[in-house]
Amino acid sequence: MRAPTAADVEQARRFVADVVRATPVLESWTLAERTGGSVVLKTESLQRTGSFKIRGAIAKLAALGPAAAGGVVAGSAGNHAWAVAFAARQRGVPCEVFMPPEAPLGKVEGCRSLGATVVEGGASVDACVAQARERAVTAGMAFVHPFDDPDVVAGQGTLGLELLEQVPDLTKVIVPLGGGGLASGVALAVKASRPEVEIVAVQAEAVAAWPGSLSSGHPVEIPAATTIADGIALKRPGDITFPLVKQLVDQVVTVPEDEIAEAMVLLAERTKLVVEGAGAVGVAALLTGVATPAARGTTCVILSGGNVDAGLLASVARLHESRSGRRLVLFTRIPDRPGALARLLAAVGEAGGNLIDVEHVREGVALHVRETAVQLVLETRSREHAELVVGALELAGYSPEQIS
Amino acid sequence: MRAPTAADVEQARRFVADVVRATPVLESWTLAERTGGSVVLKTESLQRTGSFKIRGAIAKLAALGPAAAGGVVAGSAGNHAWAVAFAARQRGVPCEVFMPPEAPLGKVEGCRSLGATVVEGGASVDACVAQARERAVTAGMAFVHPFDDPDVVAGQGTLGLELLEQVPDLTKVIVPLGGGGLASGVALAVKASRPEVEIVAVQAEAVAAWPGSLSSGHPVEIPAATTIADGIALKRPGDITFPLVKQLVDQVVTVPEDEIAEAMVLLAERTKLVVEGAGAVGVAALLTGVATPAARGTTCVILSGGNVDAGLLASVARLHESRSGRRLVLFTRIPDRPGALARLLAAVGEAGGNLIDVEHVREGVALHVRETAVQLVLETRSREHAELVVGALELAGYSPEQIS
Repeated sequence: MRAPTAADVEQARRFVADVVRATPVLESWTLAERTGGSVVLKTESLQRTGSFKIRGAIAKLAALGPAAAGGVVAGSAGNHAWAVAFAARQRGVPCEVFMPPEAPLGKVEGCRSLGATVVEGGASVDACVAQARERAVTAGMAFVHPFDDPDVVAGQGTLGLELLEQVPDLTKVIVPLGGGGLASGVALAVKASRPEVEIVAVQAEAVAAWPGSLSSGHPVEIPAATTIADGIALKRPGDITFPLVKQLVDQVVTVPEDEIAEAMVLLAERTKLVVEGAGAVGVAALLTGVATPAARGTTCVILSGGNVDAGLLASVARLHESRSGRRLVLFTRIPDRPGALARLLAAVGEAGGNLIDVEHVREGVALHVRETAVQLVLETRSREHAELVVGALELAGYSPEQIS
Repeated sequence: MRAPTAADVEQARRFVADVVRATPVLESWTLAERTGGSVVLKTESLQRTGSFKIRGAIAKLAALGPAAAGGVVAGSAGNHAWAVAFAARQRGVPCEVFMPPEAPLGKVEGCRSLGATVVEGGASVDACVAQARERAVTAGMAFVHPFDDPDVVAGQGTLGLELLEQVPDLTKVIVPLGGGGLASGVALAVKASRPEVEIVAVQAEAVAAWPGSLSSGHPVEIPAATTIADGIALKRPGDITFPLVKQLVDQVVTVPEDEIAEAMVLLAERTKLVVEGAGAVGVAALLTGVATPAARGTTCVILSGGNVDAGLLASVARLHESRSGRRLVLFTRIPDRPGALARLLAAVGEAGGNLIDVEHVREGVALHVRETAVQLVLETRSREHAELVVGALELAGYSPEQIS
């Protein structure tokens, strides 16, 4: 297939103009404070279907034209499937999508609500893409690759054109990197008119196929793994996206799982935005320091998607509460006497700890006769406050052990 | 005190221009689909300090001028305190804020990080406001009321001016109602140039002082109560805001707690926005049908704030998962034999249930000898899927009981 060009991006923009939302660019005072640079967020999480993928899907179906009349097939962790389902409904053609069993429920429901047939595919995105490709051949439908397609890359590039208009003093772009569709499309669009703008692409450490591929000079497949950034968990760079990223992206960095989760919480608590793992890697890169804001001008972090199930959001938030010392799990022995638990809980309350859960622990603990043990889950105001609560219990004669 | 006018709002706009963000207005396809109208969201949750309150605080401190030199004092559930702390730092004057012990930790930290002295006040917002007023007198500082002040009302009204520009075909505004500062300010601004625009104000059912006050013709105090919409839990309408709301607001409606929580989850999952309870009441009003979108033109729902602790967000998300059948808690007896639990869990897995937690239950349950009982927490894809999982377990010989 031909390599996409900046002209293809301009063409794609005409296709997507009526459908995609020019998502807001928001100044981030929190990130500015933490990093010492001027940082803005491109809130593509607020895009229709919840991610940038709709840009590529709309552009591809427009390019297919009558070739899509028999319907379209896609394989994806979810966002691409949802986007293709949207584009197919818009053009009134049938749509089938292959998604891994682990795909977030919200994304599955999103596809179904648009009338697409959702097929449970293999465990990895790559497997689902292969299944979709086969199905397209046997069913006489058009296959829509999630990234390794010039029309799709051109569609994703429309986000870059928007950035150029929205951030006149743009000097650096930090973009999530999975298959490479968004990163190469944005790089293509931005570098065409502003070659001096630096492009930093970010992968999840758990599934980072790019660093090895780039140093090998060709796409190298790595094993599949689980990551909170499921949307960018690709085992192998694309054949079309590889040379584009190699040529146009200035730096590829990786971020660990825990930092991605922390970035999601920071975005929710401070910036009030729900961003999925794959969409939060750019912020994680700034927080860990593997990427830094440009010394001059404005650095834009692309929040590429916001499709998170309420359940995952809850888990990430809880984890953060524990980490920041705002959720304290304590184990302690108490006398096996009437009123003993009430006295312990009174001590907790006086210290300002908010009791979330209390559970008796009987098994696997060495207890004296006339002694019992409890596990407490408490909410505290901060790590310092948590230490005060523990200290108060020690003063009251207990020997609380902190469980993390 | 004098009643604020539309001219005061115009004046306030000059004060706030350099500080407040013109928050984006986003089209909501989800709400359009559910309600059949054209609905946009004013994302004031993305405002600096996380709520509209900064508008009133900046306007008030500007109006005070040299009178604020000795410092300012405020009492608030959190957002107003945070906003006053911000405004005080900006002008370089000391700031003290009285907040209830139950104030969300994020708001307390927000104030502290801006250099304000946070004092733990009474349990209700009203009590904190009274304490702040006293403190101002004894300390010779300026008191900044959260809503019952013409300059504060004028400041909040700047949001209305923005709306007029951002939504040219505006026909209805749905706005949260607590003390009445935002509702009266917005109504003042909007009705001055577009008197035909309908204003609907929404209270949390748990603390709804306005309906009774409006029908009595004067502010009537009601008892304090706990609500997820803590930001609008005011016991009594303001003396300045009362006549404004009475004259300018077309309708006051109330929404129950559960629906506010559901609105928060819908905003997070579908719209990708973190919105606090008080900020989500307008969406809750649309979802419950107590408010409807205008038949013609565009209805704007004001999302007034986004300050939610990760912990509360997690609780709300979990609650939603249970409600929507995506979180299933089952109790069942199993034989007390090696491998019995493994077999049960295999049956759960085959039915597609994702195991979150399993716990043995020994106390308070009638068990035969050689029998044990377990409680399972499962994640399912939908209510229908949850029923399939239960059915599969029954087919496999278990008698699962669903616990809600």
